[in-house]
Amino acid sequence: MKKIFVFLMFCSVLSLHAQLRNSDVYEITEMNYSSVRNEIHIPDVEGYQTLKCDFHIHSIFSDGNVWPDVRVSEAWQDGLDAIAITDHIEYRPKKEILKGDLNESYKIAKKAGDAIGFMVIKGAEITRSKPLGHLNALFINDAMPLDVEDPLQAIEEALRQGAFIMWNHPGWPDDKSTFYPVHDELIKAGKIHGVEVFNYMEYYPVVFDWCKQMNLAFMSNSDIHDPIHTSYGIENNVRPMTLVLAKERTVESIKEALFAKRSIAYFHGMLVGKPEHLKGLLKASLKIRIINEKQAEITNISDITYRATAGSNLYILPAQKTILFSIPQPETVFTVKNCYTGNEENLTISASDFDIW
Amino acid sequence: MKKIFVFLMFCSVLSLHAQLRNSDVYEITEMNYSSVRNEIHIPDVEGYQTLKCDFHIHSIFSDGNVWPDVRVSEAWQDGLDAIAITDHIEYRPKKEILKGDLNESYKIAKKAGDAIGFMVIKGAEITRSKPLGHLNALFINDAMPLDVEDPLQAIEEALRQGAFIMWNHPGWPDDKSTFYPVHDELIKAGKIHGVEVFNYMEYYPVVFDWCKQMNLAFMSNSDIHDPIHTSYGIENNVRPMTLVLAKERTVESIKEALFAKRSIAYFHGMLVGKPEHLKGLLKASLKIRIINEKQAEITNISDITYRATAGSNLYILPAQKTILFSIPQPETVFTVKNCYTGNEENLTISASDFDIW
Amino acid sequence: MKKIFVFLMFCSVLSLHAQLRNSDVYEITEMNYSSVRNEIHIPDVEGYQTLKCDFHIHSIFSDGNVWPDVRVSEAWQDGLDAIAITDHIEYRPKKEILKGDLNESYKIAKKAGDAIGFMVIKGAEITRSKPLGHLNALFINDAMPLDVEDPLQAIEEALRQGAFIMWNHPGWPDDKSTFYPVHDELIKAGKIHGVEVFNYMEYYPVVFDWCKQMNLAFMSNSDIHDPIHTSYGIENNVRPMTLVLAKERTVESIKEALFAKRSIAYFHGMLVGKPEHLKGLLKASLKIRIINEKQAEITNISDITYRATAGSNLYILPAQKTILFSIPQPETVFTVKNCYTGNEENLTISASDFDIW
Amino acid sequence: MKKIFVFLMFCSVLSLHAQLRNSDVYEITEMNYSSVRNEIHIPDVEGYQTLKCDFHIHSIFSDGNVWPDVRVSEAWQDGLDAIAITDHIEYRPKKEILKGDLNESYKIAKKAGDAIGFMVIKGAEITRSKPLGHLNALFINDAMPLDVEDPLQAIEEALRQGAFIMWNHPGWPDDKSTFYPVHDELIKAGKIHGVEVFNYMEYYPVVFDWCKQMNLAFMSNSDIHDPIHTSYGIENNVRPMTLVLAKERTVESIKEALFAKRSIAYFHGMLVGKPEHLKGLLKASLKIRIINEKQAEITNISDITYRATAGSNLYILPAQKTILFSIPQPETVFTVKNCYTGNEENLTISASDFDIW
Repeated sequence: MKKIFVFLMFCSVLSLHAQLRNSDVYEITEMNYSSVRNEIHIPDVEGYQTLKCDFHIHSIFSDGNVWPDVRVSEAWQDGLDAIAITDHIEYRPKKEILKGDLNESYKIAKKAGDAIGFMVIKGAEITRSKPLGHLNALFINDAMPLDVEDPLQAIEEALRQGAFIMWNHPGWPDDKSTFYPVHDELIKAGKIHGVEVFNYMEYYPVVFDWCKQMNLAFMSNSDIHDPIHTSYGIENNVRPMTLVLAKERTVESIKEALFAKRSIAYFHGMLVGKPEHLKGLLKASLKIRIINEKQAEITNISDITYRATAGSNLYILPAQKTILFSIPQPETVFTVKNCYTGNEENLTISASDFDIW
Repeated sequence: MKKIFVFLMFCSVLSLHAQLRNSDVYEITEMNYSSVRNEIHIPDVEGYQTLKCDFHIHSIFSDGNVWPDVRVSEAWQDGLDAIAITDHIEYRPKKEILKGDLNESYKIAKKAGDAIGFMVIKGAEITRSKPLGHLNALFINDAMPLDVEDPLQAIEEALRQGAFIMWNHPGWPDDKSTFYPVHDELIKAGKIHGVEVFNYMEYYPVVFDWCKQMNLAFMSNSDIHDPIHTSYGIENNVRPMTLVLAKERTVESIKEALFAKRSIAYFHGMLVGKPEHLKGLLKASLKIRIINEKQAEITNISDITYRATAGSNLYILPAQKTILFSIPQPETVFTVKNCYTGNEENLTISASDFDIW
Repeated sequence: MKKIFVFLMFCSVLSLHAQLRNSDVYEITEMNYSSVRNEIHIPDVEGYQTLKCDFHIHSIFSDGNVWPDVRVSEAWQDGLDAIAITDHIEYRPKKEILKGDLNESYKIAKKAGDAIGFMVIKGAEITRSKPLGHLNALFINDAMPLDVEDPLQAIEEALRQGAFIMWNHPGWPDDKSTFYPVHDELIKAGKIHGVEVFNYMEYYPVVFDWCKQMNLAFMSNSDIHDPIHTSYGIENNVRPMTLVLAKERTVESIKEALFAKRSIAYFHGMLVGKPEHLKGLLKASLKIRIINEKQAEITNISDITYRATAGSNLYILPAQKTILFSIPQPETVFTVKNCYTGNEENLTISASDFDIW
Repeated sequence: MKKIFVFLMFCSVLSLHAQLRNSDVYEITEMNYSSVRNEIHIPDVEGYQTLKCDFHIHSIFSDGNVWPDVRVSEAWQDGLDAIAITDHIEYRPKKEILKGDLNESYKIAKKAGDAIGFMVIKGAEITRSKPLGHLNALFINDAMPLDVEDPLQAIEEALRQGAFIMWNHPGWPDDKSTFYPVHDELIKAGKIHGVEVFNYMEYYPVVFDWCKQMNLAFMSNSDIHDPIHTSYGIENNVRPMTLVLAKERTVESIKEALFAKRSIAYFHGMLVGKPEHLKGLLKASLKIRIINEKQAEITNISDITYRATAGSNLYILPAQKTILFSIPQPETVFTVKNCYTGNEENLTISASDFDIW
């Protein structure tokens, strides 16, 4: 018996089912989100590929709630390019009942990533109370030697393995983003390379300035413990991500870019980064069509809604949409409200930066 | 420092963030889906509460990928009223590295359910190849004694504990829904009480007739192994569910209703059940407002879109919407295309069943 | 040739097409939004029906862009209960080419409304520059006698016909909501009965206080000139509306309610009205289920997302969703941020107002 | 007084409001759909620009319900590139009360189009009962001389003006797509150049074959009378459109392309056209990334979901999404179910047509 099955869809991304097998069992393939990858439209910037990455992720091997390979399928589905598995070295509440050394979660995720060409980075979270707080060691080879009493020694070991050291959620758990002497020392010694400005649902405006003043990479990560869609839903583009401006689509290139501080923190419509990176991204996102000497159409080809002001005018450039625009004087300066270069400091861009005149 | 944070929302269910704490850390509360429960609008039927249940769910303790308490938060979020944890007795691929007896996953989930007033039912999946296939024992006290070589003995033990026995996905894995002698014997002896007509993304039309002919409860379940939203997304009302017509909102009442075969299988806009239950649900879903002697407005207050035909006319009654309707002759008979009382048999209902004349 | 047509849906409210006629032409019925009415879920309040009304609407007979009957089908589709057609008396830019007296647009709309049981109210806009500004005369019998040079005389004539006089958009077009002596006189004489606090995409916070201090009805209207969905889209519940607490679903009851000042202005998630009406609406919107002595579930059955604070806590109650809630002390006072009783004055409600203790 | 206004959004395309003026009036700019243009992602094909056009549109000057300039703003908003205004020559029910000659609606729309750089084409509908039925004359200079008793003479006059003649909705109103002798004569004489295969919500499968056999342009148009969003909603990409493969973005180029029969009819996920155009569009829509010798990722960059079969396999390529794909043998032939080259004839494409081997 062959039968075409016809149905109500729940979402425009879902597709039609057709039962093609010679059987008496019917499948509703268009319900299955897990086989479809969202595409995030964020353009490449000035010769670099803009890779969407999440460098802070937990599995059941520390205090997360899912098996490590789930993290790969979630991130593939969400349109990311790479993730790091960063289970806590020290905090493993299930370790009495769940066997596995500190490298186990990476191994499981890496195998799942390799099967579908998805990049998985080996990491670990070095976990202490404040003042030091939590730090992720990324691009390590072996997490076992990081399991030492002195966290500074763990950092040294990670650095010995070539790690990029990220200071995690400086404002957590006390709602204060405090810069302690230990951070000053580590940063001055080149032993911290980036800081999270977004973590899960939180962000830390004063840290925008730290990154700027001390040339640290801007980082934005989910720090996810539960299934990701249970927290963020399953729309495009909603989890925090670090946009990495990489020479190539490889783990090595991501590492090179992070050490070169070519990253933009992105979450919830907000972008935080260096002016040159944000300006490059903005320009790559906007396509202008001149209508006549007074008017133009601006199409925002990205998934990021930009909001700018110039004087008392507000300009909203919705993601994937076009607006009509009175061509401004070349010397007009726009302040881009959702692009931050520091705490209370926004990207500014001149009309003459665009190829209209 | 106090600051109001302003932003683009991604979805109408998300709400406004306001940062009210005296801190330099900002939270984006409206992104967090996990704190919000969807409401499924399916009306109560003829004095019974219509409870939305999923009786087939796996955790990491068998071949699932999430910790058991995740199943409670997912189901709460999805608007369900009750779930059963039904890990395989025999198939536990992680058992070499994950300690825990056969009751462990239920215990963890139950504790999470109790904390928020969500019903969790103890179950287990007795797992054999065909002909017998898989059966869920629901409402058991102890899964350990079911771990025996002879599956019929496991069933006996479950029955001894008062279990409701559900035959799972009869069409899996060979795409044939075959009724074997062993099922005939068990059903005749009153040892199978319900059958899945929907499982995950599949359904089994011939099984609609088995339920009807042998008075078995119509069952519809997710059989979920991965995080649920990774498979089904996170919209209202998309995972398979068994609608149980219960006297009260208790586990005991659910059990009583299932043994009394008061259930409707629901998935993807399709409903399968007894004519009296489907008719009751349809009537409770529709509110009619007479405009004049020729016309009426029909409002479908449920989340289920109904589609009916009468002669060559097609009537679509979209979920939560109203349509204009020419008042038909009282003797008009409607065939409700998305309500099945058997394989190739749809619910029929007469215009005179509604209180118009 | 008969054929079932199968397809991708664009929206969950759309339904399946089936081609049932014996023809070689196929119809895609599920695309046709115009045959489906959205339902707005705003509960009735303390014995009154909550009717959703728009009292400020233009057609092609003044400076609008659509034929009058379009206004009825748009409003029916949007889930409203009643509209007023309020073309300008004086400003009719197409009058040189379009014949028809000042009652013509109402006549056309009324006929369309009667055909489907939708209420259409006869109105007209008396249109002058500031200081007087624009006023709508609602529930009139004949617009022709309002076409006089002296606007105060037009108001007198409207009053003679029993009109409810609404002062429109006090902040337009100069971005100043100015209360001129002429308004003082008219209000003191009982010749202005309500004021718009929302008009199109604008609102006027200082006018919230005028309504409160002078006991004027709170009004919220679209003042639509273009096709309504071109401006507001076609989602549920997005155009401005005046919620009228009426004894019955009749034009007479709407009139009685407006003169009795039982109305709530509603737009974009904001509600403005008298404390007793807002409190009644809030209480009718929330259903509480006690879990244990510490916790409850609150379900918001309305389409309005409520946001409240108590001390430093923020409570978001999303439309049609449920949240978990720690049961507060009975003396806790909540400030409801999206419910305004005046400019800078929000509805407050005590926990003891709810039936928990 | 300056104030930041904070709110719940209804849709991801809407943007943040900020009140920047020094006033006591607040605007909710993000509600206003009318200022934003959707972008339709349909790639250019083999050196041609793929222009999205609607060649069948009515205004209030015939039997439509909106002022002509509304058609320009609707189409701009919907992401189209060009429209034709095609009011009936003969059927003008409002002509007793609405002055204006047969060119008036075009003039009004053209002025609105010129102001924003949107292309408006002059057309007219020659309207008779069957057998002839309705025909649109497109690219005319003057509609007045078409107002003659003999429709064949009207066609001659249109041809004299250089018109492209389109046969409209051959299956309307009798649900029969009948090819009468008059059509045979006109087509043989080169006096009909295209036929609608989609019109409003209808389509005509047998006409797919007529276009193929007689080399007529495939046309798909809205034939809209009401406000367009009242019928189709306001999502991207939902109204019928004719995709024109034009050398340039000019009216002249559109005309040249239509006479050269470079058009694809598009509606509701279905595409009908010549195999070479459909194949070109499909190939331009799909980007392939090789993972390893067995697997690839296919990204569909278009807004069109493609569905293909090969043997018993079903492949769904959702719009704007990526799927994993087992690399097939080069000789595998896919049948693309939503791309029609004739009635009951689908586009076929070989795996070797893609640049994988």
